[in-house]
Amino acid sequence: MEKVKLGAVPYIYPIPIVLVGATVNGRANYAEVGDCALMGIRPALVCVSLGKDHHTTQGIDEHEAFSINIPTQRMLAVTDYCGIASGKDVDKSVLFEAFPGEHTGVPMIQDCPVGLECRVKEAVQIEHRRIFIAEVLECYVSAAFVTRSDRGPQIAELSRLDPILYGLDNRYYTIGAPTGTGYREGASYRNAA
Amino acid sequence: MEKVKLGAVPYIYPIPIVLVGATVNGRANYAEVGDCALMGIRPALVCVSLGKDHHTTQGIDEHEAFSINIPTQRMLAVTDYCGIASGKDVDKSVLFEAFPGEHTGVPMIQDCPVGLECRVKEAVQIEHRRIFIAEVLECYVSAAFVTRSDRGPQIAELSRLDPILYGLDNRYYTIGAPTGTGYREGASYRNAA
Repeated sequence: MEKVKLGAVPYIYPIPIVLVGATVNGRANYAEVGDCALMGIRPALVCVSLGKDHHTTQGIDEHEAFSINIPTQRMLAVTDYCGIASGKDVDKSVLFEAFPGEHTGVPMIQDCPVGLECRVKEAVQIEHRRIFIAEVLECYVSAAFVTRSDRGPQIAELSRLDPILYGLDNRYYTIGAPTGTGYREGASYRNAA
Repeated sequence: MEKVKLGAVPYIYPIPIVLVGATVNGRANYAEVGDCALMGIRPALVCVSLGKDHHTTQGIDEHEAFSINIPTQRMLAVTDYCGIASGKDVDKSVLFEAFPGEHTGVPMIQDCPVGLECRVKEAVQIEHRRIFIAEVLECYVSAAFVTRSDRGPQIAELSRLDPILYGLDNRYYTIGAPTGTGYREGASYRNAA
C-alpha cells in the first residue's frame, strides 16, 4: 500500500474518554481527558496528560492525587462540557454528585460506573504538557456492574458499561461487537502457520 | 449507586491495540501493546509501557526510537500472536512486510493503515515497567485511507480504519457507532443549563 506522510500527528485511535477529578483550591474540579492510558496491571499504573496551566493540573500538583472516572454514553453532554468549560471560569463541583476517595480524599464521581483513585508517582513535563504517571490505590465500581464469581468480584461485560470513545476525527463513538479473545486468536494463528 | 471496591485495579477501558515495532539486534521485532496513549497534539506526544525485560524494550533503549502501528480487525490473529510469542524465541520480522521510518529507520508495518515513527524523549521505570514518552516524527497513512480537503490531506472516517479495541475482560472489540461531535455536545448542555 502506498503511504502518505501527514507530518507530526499523534494519530492513535480510538481513545477512551475519562473525567479526571482533582481538588483545586478546596473545591472539586473535573477535566475531560482523552490523553489517558493503562500503563501496567501489576503494579497498577495509569497515566494522564494535561496542559500545564489547566485548572485541574494545579490541583494534581498540589495534592499529588487525582481520580479517573469513566463516564457512560448517557453522560456524553456533561462530559463534553467538562472539556469546554474551565474550572477557572465556572464551578464544576456542582456538575456531579461525588464521594471522597478513601486514601487521598480526591473527588470520585458517583454516576460513573468505574472510578480509579490515583496517587502520582512521576510527573514529566514536556513543553506545555504535564504528564502524570500514577499508581491506582483503589478501583470503585457501581454494584450494579459487578458480578460474583469463584475468582471474587468481577466487572460486568464491557458493552453494559457503555463507554465513550473518541476518534481524533472529533467524533465520539460507542464500543462495538466482541471479535475475539486475548491469547486465543494468536494461538490459532501459530498453529495454522 | 452503591460502590464495590476491587482493590488496585487499573481498569481503564477500552484500550486501543497497537503493534510496537523496534530494531533488536539488527532485526525487526513487534510487540502487541494496549498500554499505549496519545499524550498531546502539539507537541505530538505518545507513550507506551512495556516490561523492562521484553525483547522490544531492549531495541527501544538501544535506538531511542520505535514505531506504533495500528492494525485492523483483519489482522487480529497475527496481532494477538505478537502478544503471545517473544522475539527472544521466534523471528517476528517475517510476520509483516515493513519499510524503514525515514528519520530513525525503525520498522513500520506496511499492512497497518496508520503508522507513527517515534523518538523517545523520556523513559520512566517503575518496578518492572518501562514507560517511554516519545514525540511523533512522522505519521504514515495508507493512501486508500486519505481524503483531500481544503485543509490538506485528512484521514478517512474511523469506521473504515476498523481498529482493534481491548476490554480488560480479555476480549477484543470493534469500534461502534458515532454518537456525537467534540465541543458540540457540551455546548448544548451549557445552553440547556
